[in-house]
Amino acid sequence: MLKIKELETPCLVLNRSKVQRNITTIEQRLARLGASLRPHGKTAKCIDVIRMLAPQHQKRITVSTLKEAEYFFSHDITDILLAVGITPSKLPRLKNLIEQGAQLTIILDSIEQVVFVSQYAAQHDLNIKVLIEIDCDGERAGIPWDDDQLLAVGRALIAAPGVTPIGIMTHAGGSYHCKTPEQMIQMAEQERTAAVKSAQRLTDLGIHTEVISVGSTPTALFAENLEGITEVRAGVFMFNDLVMAGLGVCHFDDIALTVLTSVMGRHTAKQRLLVDAGWMALSRDRGTASQLVDYHYGAVADEHYNQIRCLSVNSTNQEHGIIECQSQQASQFRLLFVGTLLHVFPNHACATAAMHDRYYVTDDGVTISDVWHRVNGW
Amino acid sequence: MLKIKELETPCLVLNRSKVQRNITTIEQRLARLGASLRPHGKTAKCIDVIRMLAPQHQKRITVSTLKEAEYFFSHDITDILLAVGITPSKLPRLKNLIEQGAQLTIILDSIEQVVFVSQYAAQHDLNIKVLIEIDCDGERAGIPWDDDQLLAVGRALIAAPGVTPIGIMTHAGGSYHCKTPEQMIQMAEQERTAAVKSAQRLTDLGIHTEVISVGSTPTALFAENLEGITEVRAGVFMFNDLVMAGLGVCHFDDIALTVLTSVMGRHTAKQRLLVDAGWMALSRDRGTASQLVDYHYGAVADEHYNQIRCLSVNSTNQEHGIIECQSQQASQFRLLFVGTLLHVFPNHACATAAMHDRYYVTDDGVTISDVWHRVNGW
Repeated sequence: MLKIKELETPCLVLNRSKVQRNITTIEQRLARLGASLRPHGKTAKCIDVIRMLAPQHQKRITVSTLKEAEYFFSHDITDILLAVGITPSKLPRLKNLIEQGAQLTIILDSIEQVVFVSQYAAQHDLNIKVLIEIDCDGERAGIPWDDDQLLAVGRALIAAPGVTPIGIMTHAGGSYHCKTPEQMIQMAEQERTAAVKSAQRLTDLGIHTEVISVGSTPTALFAENLEGITEVRAGVFMFNDLVMAGLGVCHFDDIALTVLTSVMGRHTAKQRLLVDAGWMALSRDRGTASQLVDYHYGAVADEHYNQIRCLSVNSTNQEHGIIECQSQQASQFRLLFVGTLLHVFPNHACATAAMHDRYYVTDDGVTISDVWHRVNGW
Repeated sequence: MLKIKELETPCLVLNRSKVQRNITTIEQRLARLGASLRPHGKTAKCIDVIRMLAPQHQKRITVSTLKEAEYFFSHDITDILLAVGITPSKLPRLKNLIEQGAQLTIILDSIEQVVFVSQYAAQHDLNIKVLIEIDCDGERAGIPWDDDQLLAVGRALIAAPGVTPIGIMTHAGGSYHCKTPEQMIQMAEQERTAAVKSAQRLTDLGIHTEVISVGSTPTALFAENLEGITEVRAGVFMFNDLVMAGLGVCHFDDIALTVLTSVMGRHTAKQRLLVDAGWMALSRDRGTASQLVDYHYGAVADEHYNQIRCLSVNSTNQEHGIIECQSQQASQFRLLFVGTLLHVFPNHACATAAMHDRYYVTDDGVTISDVWHRVNGW
């Protein structure tokens, strides 16, 4: 069997035991709260990872691209939520999926979108299921729950042919800026409240709000009450990353995804180590830059996953990672010969995984038991 | 013929007329200086782009990965320089390429590397051509030209079986931090001097230094003297980007690569426009952050390439780009309906192109005349 030490670097290593533990954590937590999970496929982009969830969580999925939708549909997941606002150029592939039998739901937050989706649907004899996107934290898209625009879009959906409003969705992206567990709990409750209140307004309009969808990994793991919520979306939790660890959402040891890299240069005079994972392998994501501990382009561990606390990838070029060492780290330094393998723990699992087309899967941290492929692009 | 306005977003659009102009600029400049180009394949990663160079510049190439090396070799470019320091796990594929007839040259800067490369080469009856990497600016890898380590590595290469030293290479990454044309000219001269002086020291050792290789797009375009240099490496110049424009290496109008995106939301109350190009399509590169004009995640133009000066992509999520508008921009804003197409000019062409698997090629900015594929990964 192939061993980690035989892998060509840089490459992506996925520790399956840690993925399983991360999945169990969220499944148990949501079960206690009586909530159901609609996993987000955007982090893993890989059916084999989704197949590690409990059977009831493999029946429906959240996606960020039509390519993911097509991929998961081809692997028999039919209930799919495209959780990024709809645009006209995406309609033909949406139509193909629906005609092939996908139970596809889209999101929107404007009358403009209702108009072009409805026109297209009516013209092609489709019926498209729609969630109205709610803004619960001012971070990105959506309509605030108490804004009258919500009712205007709701009424437009009721009146328009070819579209069926079935509820609302919201995403508390603001949870990524929380500093304490209390703030995270409060953000989860803010997300829930916005969802439930907006759904009630639409119910009052006469819409059958069968879906009330919330989610982000931090709020999914910190929510203490999910009453009224029909599904929770989350994806990063499967892998976790340094940003999640910095938020207190997971421990460092829960990070299941690493980039395996080789030392390619030791420059003692410059106190510098060069590795063959640059931004092409690690991504340019600097998510920990605004956190208490800044890992620059990633934390470093030895081949056996033991963190080398004094080292991080300080800067990157395309195929070079540069680890600058403090003088007191010189003793560590001497052991890191050219060719030594290191694991780099990523700031942001979605971004780092996106730079690769496959996962080298390990259970024991020594041998590779599987190679799993990702679906990148659009 | 497919039109730009019919493309599904997000996607990468390459303006071939601009690529041709950029190529002509550097070819004429280097011809005037009597220097020869070894194009770097790491930006375009596409044989069709390399085929736009003058015939004499298609005979040899620089690559950053073995995958690029294999790809360009399969397209009949046999003289290949792998311009990233060698590590042990890369040797088997290197061997395959050499055995298939590739004239492959590697770089290294330590005796450790000489030892494992020589052992492998001798064991497999190979002869591997080697350049010693020189550090001309303290930015990354390499040995300073006046460091005695240079002679030690040179002597080790002479003594070791299976390796043939053929010269030196250096890369003035520091040119990316220059603020004025004068600094750039000085940096180019610093790069040239380090190259020529280190080559002389190796010649004095008895090494036949047939290759004296320098390069970066800024120094290639600002060098006023390339005496003693046998080849100039550069890659970004083919596309250019906002960082290059900020450095004064090109004009905004020379940027040949854009991400085509659709408006997917207009939030007038928040003065915010959402587009469907997030960091997955644009990359997380923030190269202009340290420049005079910070374009955040990219500058914005309309479908006809007219820059909308008041707009840039201020922040990104995975599949969302967020354009925050000042109130005085409200008049622009009203014209940007959901579905409106925009071009986003990238901070860093290498990083943005790396997020895509193909280029939609246009000559006239209206129709798509070709679709060209990239070779991503390792």
